[in-house]
Amino acid sequence: MVEPEIFSHEYWMQEALKQAQIAYEEGEIPVGAVMVVKNRIIAKAYNQTEKLTDVTAHAEILAITAAENTLGSKYLTECRLYVTLEPCVMCAGAAYWAQLGELHYGAADPKRGFTRLGSNLLHPKTKSSRGLLEDKSKNLLQAFFKNLRN
Amino acid sequence: MVEPEIFSHEYWMQEALKQAQIAYEEGEIPVGAVMVVKNRIIAKAYNQTEKLTDVTAHAEILAITAAENTLGSKYLTECRLYVTLEPCVMCAGAAYWAQLGELHYGAADPKRGFTRLGSNLLHPKTKSSRGLLEDKSKNLLQAFFKNLRN
Repeated sequence: MVEPEIFSHEYWMQEALKQAQIAYEEGEIPVGAVMVVKNRIIAKAYNQTEKLTDVTAHAEILAITAAENTLGSKYLTECRLYVTLEPCVMCAGAAYWAQLGELHYGAADPKRGFTRLGSNLLHPKTKSSRGLLEDKSKNLLQAFFKNLRN
Repeated sequence: MVEPEIFSHEYWMQEALKQAQIAYEEGEIPVGAVMVVKNRIIAKAYNQTEKLTDVTAHAEILAITAAENTLGSKYLTECRLYVTLEPCVMCAGAAYWAQLGELHYGAADPKRGFTRLGSNLLHPKTKSSRGLLEDKSKNLLQAFFKNLRN
């Protein structure tokens, strides 16, 4: 029997936003992500570059690594990644290698986002969408950088 | 007193090749890297994507993470990364965030290398070179894929 999906994309992005909120509270640039298979979160992560002193510790990289560990597979073709901000080139490259099933991101990142390069850095099989709960993601980021300046 | 550099670029690439050789022996795509500050290796790594079941476990990512941990800094502006194969987009993106001082790679990777995109993915301050001990890197990769096919 095929298990029906009972949650909306917005629901999962809300979960990603909760992760971003944790980052915010810990003084990290507030970006959060969840990796979903069907009705289940198999990995959640938030940006930890400051805490781990590691530029590779973006929410997406941590979520991909954790999901692969959980599934025991290098490939995430059945997985959907929800992330509050458009992934950078590094994270899009990781999603490429993982052959991610779906990528859904909230706010655009015109300066550092992977789409600014024009060419599609994702795997040809990866479906993607942008704009989900965009304003909430953006508000959190703007509040963070405003606090930083003050 | 300024400490003079006493090793050549080739010397360090040879050390990166030793790492690639370990990958080869462990059944991983043979790519190796060392991170150098002045006359000292502060991190060495080889591709471990199979062993760790993690697409992000490229030699460069592991070397960057280890170097930042060693230095206690997210920035590697004084560091030189020697890697046997041209980095992919993911790894170039990580080098960008780290503001890597110098990137020296051996063999080109026309299919997956970061330079195929045309635009420079590295940080404007990162110096780079290619071709150091290129044939040795290539030979190791070709031997690996030949064995895989047999």
